[in-house]
Amino acid sequence: MALIVQKFGGTSVGTIERIEAVADKVKRFRDEGHDIVVVVSAMSGETNRLIALAKGIMDEPVPREMDVLVSTGEQVTIALLSMALIKKGCPARSYTGGQVRITTDTAHTKARIQSIDEANMRRDLSEGRVVVVAGFQGVDEAGNITTLGRGGSDTTGVALAAALKADECQIYTDVDGVYTTDPRVVDTARRLDRITFEEMIEMASLGSKVLQIRSVEFAGKYNVPLRVLSSFIDGPGTLITLEEDGNMEQPVVSGIAFNRDEAKLTVIGVPDVPGIASRILKPISDANIEVDMIVQNVGADNQTDFTFTVHRNDFNKAKAILTEVAESLGAREVRGDNKIAKVSIVGVGMRSHAGVATKMFASLSEEGINIQMISTSEIKISVVIAEKYLELAVRGLHSAFDLDADKNATGV
Amino acid sequence: MALIVQKFGGTSVGTIERIEAVADKVKRFRDEGHDIVVVVSAMSGETNRLIALAKGIMDEPVPREMDVLVSTGEQVTIALLSMALIKKGCPARSYTGGQVRITTDTAHTKARIQSIDEANMRRDLSEGRVVVVAGFQGVDEAGNITTLGRGGSDTTGVALAAALKADECQIYTDVDGVYTTDPRVVDTARRLDRITFEEMIEMASLGSKVLQIRSVEFAGKYNVPLRVLSSFIDGPGTLITLEEDGNMEQPVVSGIAFNRDEAKLTVIGVPDVPGIASRILKPISDANIEVDMIVQNVGADNQTDFTFTVHRNDFNKAKAILTEVAESLGAREVRGDNKIAKVSIVGVGMRSHAGVATKMFASLSEEGINIQMISTSEIKISVVIAEKYLELAVRGLHSAFDLDADKNATGV
Repeated sequence: MALIVQKFGGTSVGTIERIEAVADKVKRFRDEGHDIVVVVSAMSGETNRLIALAKGIMDEPVPREMDVLVSTGEQVTIALLSMALIKKGCPARSYTGGQVRITTDTAHTKARIQSIDEANMRRDLSEGRVVVVAGFQGVDEAGNITTLGRGGSDTTGVALAAALKADECQIYTDVDGVYTTDPRVVDTARRLDRITFEEMIEMASLGSKVLQIRSVEFAGKYNVPLRVLSSFIDGPGTLITLEEDGNMEQPVVSGIAFNRDEAKLTVIGVPDVPGIASRILKPISDANIEVDMIVQNVGADNQTDFTFTVHRNDFNKAKAILTEVAESLGAREVRGDNKIAKVSIVGVGMRSHAGVATKMFASLSEEGINIQMISTSEIKISVVIAEKYLELAVRGLHSAFDLDADKNATGV
Repeated sequence: MALIVQKFGGTSVGTIERIEAVADKVKRFRDEGHDIVVVVSAMSGETNRLIALAKGIMDEPVPREMDVLVSTGEQVTIALLSMALIKKGCPARSYTGGQVRITTDTAHTKARIQSIDEANMRRDLSEGRVVVVAGFQGVDEAGNITTLGRGGSDTTGVALAAALKADECQIYTDVDGVYTTDPRVVDTARRLDRITFEEMIEMASLGSKVLQIRSVEFAGKYNVPLRVLSSFIDGPGTLITLEEDGNMEQPVVSGIAFNRDEAKLTVIGVPDVPGIASRILKPISDANIEVDMIVQNVGADNQTDFTFTVHRNDFNKAKAILTEVAESLGAREVRGDNKIAKVSIVGVGMRSHAGVATKMFASLSEEGINIQMISTSEIKISVVIAEKYLELAVRGLHSAFDLDADKNATGV
């Protein structure tokens, strides 16, 4: 007898047939005696349809009205899923974000949840109903409809789980869990039974886009156990929790993340004086270009080289800006490379293990892969390499850190 | 400088282009200095699309969830129209029924408005905004979404006009006003500049389906001047108001309504004893069949004939029920005819004019049309005739009561 929040994304509720399948799944849990709160997204395609309507009127639709518009997508799903549950003999009641009530700030299209009134949900649960809540939406203090931004249904799920002190928040997706790395690249990649919030955040931000990163942070902050499962295949999925003390034999590295969406820019021969980093990066951020990795090495002859990465789509724009900046700084030249990839090893085990970086670099070196940039944090090490070596690097690291499925009894 | 409520139906907002056209029209009124509250329906086809989704799950969808589902239709329109207005430099803000707030009873799918909080609207109007409200919907005391039933957007418009004490409630439709009769039947039919609420109700209930009858009753009750206009063609439309005292030369008959959706059933040779009418009609109403006209004549030999009309779709069902009833009553036989039409003359002028019925019957007689049933009220006289004579009867009456366009200078 647990209280479980289950979140189903747009693909899982994309047709009437799939909504019926979700209802079957929800009912199965409820028949086992659990209290269930379901959070759903808009049917797949619906949000894009609504956005297209708005774009038919204006290129940058008014945010307040955009939220009124797109929030209808989830509202349709909650009604349909509630009907499907009731038809199957499972009492249910739907709630929009505003009805729950999920109060947010007023930042339309990217609002943040401030509070949740759990009274309605508690009453329905105690009366034996499944509660079906529209993801992605809320209302501000004045009653204006807000949305949490794309993918925000995960956040709704976690927030409800936190408010209700649920035993688990289950996120149903089209994959059956979190993998050691992308199975399309490494065929011995295996599903992890467990991963920590911190690891998941590093994996997600590095390109393993199973969960919206914000929802993982949120879950970690409120210690809501999060489980990633498949909507279509039964299985235990991957449980994301706090790191457990004394967890015997925590693997050093939990997974290998990678990203080929980035491009590298270097300013060569920059005067090595204070304030140079901000003078280089300010025009970039002023142009709304996000910077990921930044590396500056110790200089010589009062000069240094300054390198950073941006999204590949921003490469040309950033390079043009940088060329002007370099000139004004008296730098020697600007070099760019958009054929790079970032590969990262992630694992809380790194904290207590020395030599992880050495092992990573040795593995890459064995394959003859040159490392262009290195960046480290407490639980991850990232390197930038030439894009053509990406698969080779990931496969080598996956094997070097004993992640291959055939080496582990719990693998699938 | 007036306060005007404007209601646009589904056809008027059926595409992005039409929504833009509505925005242009609204802006034109506002630029003249008027305060405008706009009520919109769902884009045409949208409500049916949503209903089809629900029917894909269950034949008789749960009413509460049905309201959650279909209310999204109008919510989409308010967002899009507000965007279009803002784009055109006309400040605007959208409100769902729940946001206004329009409070209704809890009768899902056919709720009745109980109160309207005008504070938000007043504030927006005073700040120079056009207020855009979703028609057809509200919330009950507990915050559940309700809908007013199909066509309920007209009712929303009138209710808002009443709450705001608006100078006029304009209902934009695909016709340019109320006509003396259907122009497809009588090519000399002309648009009425004015008609009273009572006349409009009789015209509407008799088949001139320009306005939802409930909204006309509502407008009459709160004395909200109602104007029917075309969304697509500019013009003064028809103003529906209270009957004015001393209105010189009120025409005797304002219009000719007709209806070919009915069928006639007669029980011949019923014992002429008290309680017979209810014994005949109760099984009919128990079967959810609505009865329109009822005629029972003075009997002879302790027997009488009992005739009534039902919707043509209910004819076979009603006849089967009646056959059983007739047997149990010892009646002689049941006769039915589904090739009939009802023709009515409507006009408040009848109250002060004698001989209107005589003139009507004479007109029909001149055309050799036999009258099968007659029913009268204070401002209308209805007759049932063979369907094949419908056009002939309507044209003759239109001419007999001086309604033809060429006889009247104000005609279009």
